[in-house]
Amino acid sequence: MIYFDSDYMAGAHPMVLERLCQTNQEQTTGYGTDAYTARATELIREACGTPDARVRFLVGGTQTNATVIDGVLSRHEGVLSAESGHINVHESGAIEATGHKVLVLPSYQGKVRAADVRDFIREFYSDDTYEHMVAPGMLYISFPTEYGTVYSLDELEELSSVCHEAGIPLFIDGARLGYGLAAEGSDVTLKDIARLADVFYIGGTKVGALFGEAVVITNPDLLKNFMPLVKQHGALLAKGRLLGVQFEALFTDGLYEKISRDTVRRAIRLKEIFNSAGYPSAVDSPTNQQFFTLPNTLIDRLREEASFEMWGPRGETESTVRFVTGWSTTDEEIEKLNNLLA
Amino acid sequence: MIYFDSDYMAGAHPMVLERLCQTNQEQTTGYGTDAYTARATELIREACGTPDARVRFLVGGTQTNATVIDGVLSRHEGVLSAESGHINVHESGAIEATGHKVLVLPSYQGKVRAADVRDFIREFYSDDTYEHMVAPGMLYISFPTEYGTVYSLDELEELSSVCHEAGIPLFIDGARLGYGLAAEGSDVTLKDIARLADVFYIGGTKVGALFGEAVVITNPDLLKNFMPLVKQHGALLAKGRLLGVQFEALFTDGLYEKISRDTVRRAIRLKEIFNSAGYPSAVDSPTNQQFFTLPNTLIDRLREEASFEMWGPRGETESTVRFVTGWSTTDEEIEKLNNLLA
Amino acid sequence: MIYFDSDYMAGAHPMVLERLCQTNQEQTTGYGTDAYTARATELIREACGTPDARVRFLVGGTQTNATVIDGVLSRHEGVLSAESGHINVHESGAIEATGHKVLVLPSYQGKVRAADVRDFIREFYSDDTYEHMVAPGMLYISFPTEYGTVYSLDELEELSSVCHEAGIPLFIDGARLGYGLAAEGSDVTLKDIARLADVFYIGGTKVGALFGEAVVITNPDLLKNFMPLVKQHGALLAKGRLLGVQFEALFTDGLYEKISRDTVRRAIRLKEIFNSAGYPSAVDSPTNQQFFTLPNTLIDRLREEASFEMWGPRGETESTVRFVTGWSTTDEEIEKLNNLLA
Amino acid sequence: MIYFDSDYMAGAHPMVLERLCQTNQEQTTGYGTDAYTARATELIREACGTPDARVRFLVGGTQTNATVIDGVLSRHEGVLSAESGHINVHESGAIEATGHKVLVLPSYQGKVRAADVRDFIREFYSDDTYEHMVAPGMLYISFPTEYGTVYSLDELEELSSVCHEAGIPLFIDGARLGYGLAAEGSDVTLKDIARLADVFYIGGTKVGALFGEAVVITNPDLLKNFMPLVKQHGALLAKGRLLGVQFEALFTDGLYEKISRDTVRRAIRLKEIFNSAGYPSAVDSPTNQQFFTLPNTLIDRLREEASFEMWGPRGETESTVRFVTGWSTTDEEIEKLNNLLA
Repeated sequence: MIYFDSDYMAGAHPMVLERLCQTNQEQTTGYGTDAYTARATELIREACGTPDARVRFLVGGTQTNATVIDGVLSRHEGVLSAESGHINVHESGAIEATGHKVLVLPSYQGKVRAADVRDFIREFYSDDTYEHMVAPGMLYISFPTEYGTVYSLDELEELSSVCHEAGIPLFIDGARLGYGLAAEGSDVTLKDIARLADVFYIGGTKVGALFGEAVVITNPDLLKNFMPLVKQHGALLAKGRLLGVQFEALFTDGLYEKISRDTVRRAIRLKEIFNSAGYPSAVDSPTNQQFFTLPNTLIDRLREEASFEMWGPRGETESTVRFVTGWSTTDEEIEKLNNLLA
Repeated sequence: MIYFDSDYMAGAHPMVLERLCQTNQEQTTGYGTDAYTARATELIREACGTPDARVRFLVGGTQTNATVIDGVLSRHEGVLSAESGHINVHESGAIEATGHKVLVLPSYQGKVRAADVRDFIREFYSDDTYEHMVAPGMLYISFPTEYGTVYSLDELEELSSVCHEAGIPLFIDGARLGYGLAAEGSDVTLKDIARLADVFYIGGTKVGALFGEAVVITNPDLLKNFMPLVKQHGALLAKGRLLGVQFEALFTDGLYEKISRDTVRRAIRLKEIFNSAGYPSAVDSPTNQQFFTLPNTLIDRLREEASFEMWGPRGETESTVRFVTGWSTTDEEIEKLNNLLA
Repeated sequence: MIYFDSDYMAGAHPMVLERLCQTNQEQTTGYGTDAYTARATELIREACGTPDARVRFLVGGTQTNATVIDGVLSRHEGVLSAESGHINVHESGAIEATGHKVLVLPSYQGKVRAADVRDFIREFYSDDTYEHMVAPGMLYISFPTEYGTVYSLDELEELSSVCHEAGIPLFIDGARLGYGLAAEGSDVTLKDIARLADVFYIGGTKVGALFGEAVVITNPDLLKNFMPLVKQHGALLAKGRLLGVQFEALFTDGLYEKISRDTVRRAIRLKEIFNSAGYPSAVDSPTNQQFFTLPNTLIDRLREEASFEMWGPRGETESTVRFVTGWSTTDEEIEKLNNLLA
Repeated sequence: MIYFDSDYMAGAHPMVLERLCQTNQEQTTGYGTDAYTARATELIREACGTPDARVRFLVGGTQTNATVIDGVLSRHEGVLSAESGHINVHESGAIEATGHKVLVLPSYQGKVRAADVRDFIREFYSDDTYEHMVAPGMLYISFPTEYGTVYSLDELEELSSVCHEAGIPLFIDGARLGYGLAAEGSDVTLKDIARLADVFYIGGTKVGALFGEAVVITNPDLLKNFMPLVKQHGALLAKGRLLGVQFEALFTDGLYEKISRDTVRRAIRLKEIFNSAGYPSAVDSPTNQQFFTLPNTLIDRLREEASFEMWGPRGETESTVRFVTGWSTTDEEIEKLNNLLA
């Protein structure tokens, strides 16, 4: 079997695991107060070009989204998000559980448009009864999106401008950030993300780590008491250095970028294979998630040797599927898929 | 330096880490739906003597406490706990953040008394205004407690009886469960815990794992929709098999018990060393946490070569300190401490 | 000036106020434990044909919605509602503040369709990842809706069936219930509402009381600990008998029905006046809220002598407006409007 | 029967009710945007000597406490309160339901001591693990307290200083504020309260109104988005002018003070009656709540003609009881009690 279900099916990239093994017997203080975490923080600040940013390491994406959003919003505010946003769909109500509404914007293959954000805010405050409604307190976007799509630098600049004109922070969910930055044709860099967002995170779980998300807070006015909130959300790892060790490895010698680049390259090759075989993409994704609408007969045949996810319900004669590459995907696996299709 | 700060200063027990390395390249489905998690579940059911118990794996203690308590309580209920209980002191308000009050009982070196629980409940319902107060909806105890003390089997039986007569579940925080079961002179077994509690957890983070807590739900009426709650609390690990692999290792060939036994044995030796040197215990703990009130001069001298925690504020001439052993503590380290004291 | 802004612009119906004055000096116990509240409870049970229903009196609509929904739902569940539902739009996030997501259904002039409810639930549970999403735990509808429309008896029967087949309760927001039951052409009775809903409320604030909503719980398995929840939500009035006195008055000699009938009759006359004058209804409402799309010039002219609300933003040349009648609206005021239009 | 159960057993003071009747037929806009509310606001600002204070009217005490505290605290903070504080005991967990812990201080007959507040804060921040604990984010006191006691001006000055040195706001629950200001021997004025607190409220429910609490926000940095929070908490009355009308009446010609003064005078006479009859006070209260420990035989005899509350459980031979006077208590009722005792 070859696996394309997701980018969190294997363990850690060997170089990450190696560092965990090398440091396993060491004794350090807990909760991220160790030297590894300090070094990972420095490496990330450098990579982001933000020497003063606060960097904190959490375990997973949902808890990171909930902790950040809970900390940024005032009690009467909600978070703007694409209807397809992870926080609106696949987090079992984690945001609402902290007391906040997800305010829904139209989704264009996972992306929101600056004009829609601007309109939402203008219409909100021009409504006489706005104090009876949930105020937009921040904007959440994912980069890349749940559809694998990415924002261009212009689009990000505009979203950032709209937010800052309205006085609300921009939060970027970077659970797959590496793949977004390595996207085919992308003109966005990590430094751009750090410059345009008020807070964002660099996903480790899906980009080579066992687990871990590095939250980067570039806006000094935000999340001033983040650590107790992290603890309150059950997101403070006792052996916190495990996060530091992994992110130190990922941000040493460009490993995070290399994993991202290789993984995206394989996904693009996979896309070409399907497209060449006559199966156009259901979404034009330049990252490591690829979507195709395939005949059910082909799906059933492929499934004998390949594992992948249905994307939505099975149709009468054809259905949409998702193929995802990860750090552990090999060129051989991609070519094996090519043979299966032939 | 030798380290006695806590039991979460080193990584994983070598046999646990080895299994993580051996399985690292494998591809499995996420979120705990893998075969390792299934096997760990079976091993834990067996060890507990509860073939029908539901077993779920979470990442850390605070999130486990918050998720379980949030799922067990009705909205108008609170959780009974010793004043010294971890949920009441050291979780940054994680329980209150889910909307529930911690109802405080007197703490006797970390333990609650069945009579106090019974009295609380009786007085509550005999108050005409009880609907204006927070109803006791469950009992939380830790085993061992935050002071390293343990309940006897009789005490646990009585607490369980009091709870069940009152119709409220008993929840045992077992973040250090292994050390409680291995406590000097303890007559409590894992099967007793499983029989007497409605839900409890087997701590991995502090007993040889990198991280992880195994929640065991023995009362079939409780937590019927636990998984979405785990997700909502940000406690569902994407690479869930990491928890399965670790607990499978811990519950194979008695590793969990062995780690616990060895760790407690070293703590008891450490206690003897201090006691023999004329420093009586501040708390008579039979587990891996040991407390002493030492002259500040001695504390300062020890600190040059040993690391350990203050327990409360520094006094004028003497202060209370805590020494903790863990899986990585060696006999040599204990004896080095002996030499330091001499 | 004549006022058509809303149905909560005047105080109480004179007969309600009279009873408040008559009983003002009496001393009774608080929090709804008085004899007036007991009598109002009995009168409402009788009117509903549900001798065993629990009846509780709260102060206002938003707090009633939040308290009921918070008490009905489990932590992992959300509430289904039309997109236009009051809880989704105009309660400042009161539902989310209790930790629950509002799950949005299409709105057909304020109404939801049973087929949409059925589809939502079926699609939810047929999704492999449903434990990562918010489970539909109840259905909220308003009767009449925010657009003044009402469900037919058949529609209510079908919604009730769909809910009960799916095992979720049906909750009816009856902030304007009287007007819905008195709607032109309606075949729904209070007994039908009580038979088909699991919990609903009879609005007082907008139907002749100073304030007050009577919650009727017909499903004995729901909201078993409602009183402490009411207190927790700050919805327990100290001088609770004020609610009992008012609802006793409203449910004596058919006053509630009479107010509703007269108020709707005047609204229908108002509709005829506009329609006859060549201004068709924007929504075909058979209750006390009427909507018209009028030329801005007419709006501006009417505003010199009549007060009413804009419904949405002002358009280029015409805009939609809302006219509402209430217990204090007189036939003379309606005819004055007729003259204004002429 | 004569009634001393509480100060919320009768309706409104006749002059308050009269104004409600006089204005009943008027049409005003809702939610507190009316002229009565504006005038009440001005009268209260004047009485407080705070021309810039924001004044908002809510319905009841529990909802006011929960809304204010929820709005003042950051997510990681809790509220300091005497153990006996209303928010800690008798609000069914309303504060915790908003996600915040009540941090308990020792209660001295209902009062907290500035030294205890100072110690709590100092010890908190001197603990290395303070980020794992709930930070004190504000101080809640009641004036008068639940025991009828009051703070002296010096005590209030000191509490205010301690809070402001620590950078946390002082919130005064004034559900019975009038009786505290009218307390025998009190040197505290309403202007003092307004000067020393950051936010407080003037209770109407227990001091002559049907219901209503006037929140006065003197610290301009606090509760900047209070109205949506009030709505979110279900505390925004649709017919908001009912609150304005009542507080306008209470703050016209010193009615609020007069009610308070007369009520306290009668309570002090009641105290003298009991004391003279050989029954000393259980608490030395200078306000409208009086506590005595009486023989059970006397309690049973009095109960035949007087109604009052037990304060705590019934003892073997004697028990503590509470007698409360209110605006409707008459001198005749007090003297009738005298006769009963004789």
